[in-house]
Amino acid sequence: MEHRINDLQIESQAHESLDFPVCINQMSSITYQCPNDKTEELNVENPKKRPYNCPYSGSKCNVTGDIQWLLLHLRNDHHVEMHDGRSFSHRYVHHNPKHLHHATWMLTVSCFLLYTIFFSCPGAANLLIFSPLLTKHWLQLLDCFGRQFCLYFAAFHMRKTPMYIAFVQFMGDEQEAMRFSYTLEVSGNGRKLAWQGVPRSLRESHKTVRDSQDGLIITRKLALIISTDNNNSKELKLKISGRVWREQ
Amino acid sequence: MEHRINDLQIESQAHESLDFPVCINQMSSITYQCPNDKTEELNVENPKKRPYNCPYSGSKCNVTGDIQWLLLHLRNDHHVEMHDGRSFSHRYVHHNPKHLHHATWMLTVSCFLLYTIFFSCPGAANLLIFSPLLTKHWLQLLDCFGRQFCLYFAAFHMRKTPMYIAFVQFMGDEQEAMRFSYTLEVSGNGRKLAWQGVPRSLRESHKTVRDSQDGLIITRKLALIISTDNNNSKELKLKISGRVWREQ
Repeated sequence: MEHRINDLQIESQAHESLDFPVCINQMSSITYQCPNDKTEELNVENPKKRPYNCPYSGSKCNVTGDIQWLLLHLRNDHHVEMHDGRSFSHRYVHHNPKHLHHATWMLTVSCFLLYTIFFSCPGAANLLIFSPLLTKHWLQLLDCFGRQFCLYFAAFHMRKTPMYIAFVQFMGDEQEAMRFSYTLEVSGNGRKLAWQGVPRSLRESHKTVRDSQDGLIITRKLALIISTDNNNSKELKLKISGRVWREQ
Repeated sequence: MEHRINDLQIESQAHESLDFPVCINQMSSITYQCPNDKTEELNVENPKKRPYNCPYSGSKCNVTGDIQWLLLHLRNDHHVEMHDGRSFSHRYVHHNPKHLHHATWMLTVSCFLLYTIFFSCPGAANLLIFSPLLTKHWLQLLDCFGRQFCLYFAAFHMRKTPMYIAFVQFMGDEQEAMRFSYTLEVSGNGRKLAWQGVPRSLRESHKTVRDSQDGLIITRKLALIISTDNNNSKELKLKISGRVWREQ
């Protein structure tokens, strides 16, 4: 357990600079950024080739490009993790839920089986990938069915009501996005909230999707009821698992 | 279809007086209402025999009594329907979702099988029980496992954010309530939101449960996405189904 905490501390320090990250964009020479309106010309010729905006929600990054380019950019410049597989499970730890920042996100395990092992056998922690990030937003990439998806988790205020939202976006156009579905589930303390949705295309910003509330919405009060550590009111712990599948 | 609308209109008129109902309490001579603090004496002797408050959420009814008495009172004085069975399905129709009042609630069917028939065969509508009620709150009684439950649906504002909440309360004490669980599910337009919870005891008011957000919470924006009639933006239609079971 001590080893795990040390790992987290080291990685947290390494990621601290990402609290307000600046897009370094080392490979800007090959992006599709078009200050001279070349983007609009591309749209008219073939809307499908229109570049996508960088989906990184933790900064105002203006990088645009095709999906393959954005994948490289997200991994290299924003250090976003790529998870291979259609199932996932995460643990969200909020040390001070009175404030919607300074939370820790961890990809606890890559499949439901190992997820069970983790919670029943602390020794299995060495198998796990940790990706702590101190931010109000959290993003992870999923690679399955030969396509890529963005998994978002955000803490925000909806007319002064503190909320959490989790959703999946498809890294491609609207038409192809409709061929997939996903579930997200949060459980604890005898309660379970499950959401099944259709991923929205990356053509829409994460803010648009968040504001339309097309995802798993958890009010902070509900989050505190569900929290797996609700005896300790100072800390919020949410276990969130999910799956993406292709519709027939 | 015409027959169904006429039925609804007639029943709506009959229930209109319930918009701001007054508790008639024809049988007040046998209630536990204790203006002379006899209630407190009962609590000290046996907390389990403490009377329960009337759970009818559409009015400020001050009637108290044991569960059997409240069941009679709810049916006779508030005209609340009793549904026999552990599974249920309802349809919520909100003609003007911009306002959180003047919605119509209908118990469409008593089990999932008939529920499917209803949506695939309009002729089966004659089999169904209609219970329209024009109110911001909606209450129905469930009778299963030899016990009774209250099923609530309420439209409310949480810090100016319009919300809907549905939850189940156990008509009995806290200890026995913990032996049950329930699910509530709303679906439509490729989305599904499912809640699994533990019914809270009737010792807590419906307002306490609502404010703790321990139930299926649907923001209005999400409700409009899920609405089965989202092509017609003037009307909100939600299909809500659920089930109660006893924990092993």
